[in-house]
Amino acid sequence: MDILLDRRSIRKYTGDDVKQEDLNYILHAAMSAPTAKNTKCYSFVVIKNKNMHKKIAKIHKYAQMILEAPVAILVVGDQNIVYKGYLPQDCAAATQNILLAATAKGYGAVWCGIYSNKERSKNIEKLFKLPKNIKAFSIVIIGKSDDSSIHVKNNWQIEKIKYEIWK
Amino acid sequence: MDILLDRRSIRKYTGDDVKQEDLNYILHAAMSAPTAKNTKCYSFVVIKNKNMHKKIAKIHKYAQMILEAPVAILVVGDQNIVYKGYLPQDCAAATQNILLAATAKGYGAVWCGIYSNKERSKNIEKLFKLPKNIKAFSIVIIGKSDDSSIHVKNNWQIEKIKYEIWK
Repeated sequence: MDILLDRRSIRKYTGDDVKQEDLNYILHAAMSAPTAKNTKCYSFVVIKNKNMHKKIAKIHKYAQMILEAPVAILVVGDQNIVYKGYLPQDCAAATQNILLAATAKGYGAVWCGIYSNKERSKNIEKLFKLPKNIKAFSIVIIGKSDDSSIHVKNNWQIEKIKYEIWK
Repeated sequence: MDILLDRRSIRKYTGDDVKQEDLNYILHAAMSAPTAKNTKCYSFVVIKNKNMHKKIAKIHKYAQMILEAPVAILVVGDQNIVYKGYLPQDCAAATQNILLAATAKGYGAVWCGIYSNKERSKNIEKLFKLPKNIKAFSIVIIGKSDDSSIHVKNNWQIEKIKYEIWK
């Protein structure tokens, strides 16, 4: 499997746990994403507590699959240390690395957006007791895939490529 | 080499070309990044023309290494089809996949930001004759690494990880 080409969003899980060593690898990959001016403005909250999962599911209508997953990672960015407006870009690169690292270790994962939704951000930031400068960016839900509807698809679209200039 | 853990920003190149099949792989990886609501709002402009490289170097002070590189990719997002405010997030995931795919194929690459800088965005959008709805996001510069100062470093920082709640 090619993790870059074959990764898919996985929304159904077997319930099997994510091994601690795999979770550490996934977090290590997240921290290895680039940040503008190398500020490393991200942090990660690992969420295994089922009560927290239930509270997140109440806040985030597109994150219901968290109820069946062993673990989720909240990606946050520090407004006080980020370079200019790069918080969503830096946190998105880290989130993408989490998806890919989970795939590399044989898990399925899905990116649930928070940052662009003010109401959702407010509720998540309150739930996690984030300080004012720490902004909730995304929640990635991770588990062993139980999604039999998922098959590898080819994302190649020649019309997405242009040469030298927009035409 | 583990592409997720060992990728670094590479800013010096040998001048050797990037093979077309590798470039296609890199673009394929870019298109395989997730987008919110699967809008696939990204497009990619491949830039090999040295005159264009010179014009980009004039606009973007942190992209001077483009003058020595065989190829660069401009990542853009379509404001007309993106889901809500997710343009920087979607384009950042695609940009991160470009960096990783270049690394996987034995090249070095660096992410040069555009989107959060209004003046730079305006000038790049004018240079590439982008329609109003197409927003310049980033330029990734790619080449065979000639950066002997680059060594693998460990990005692991235990203090970036929290459990269940912010403390």
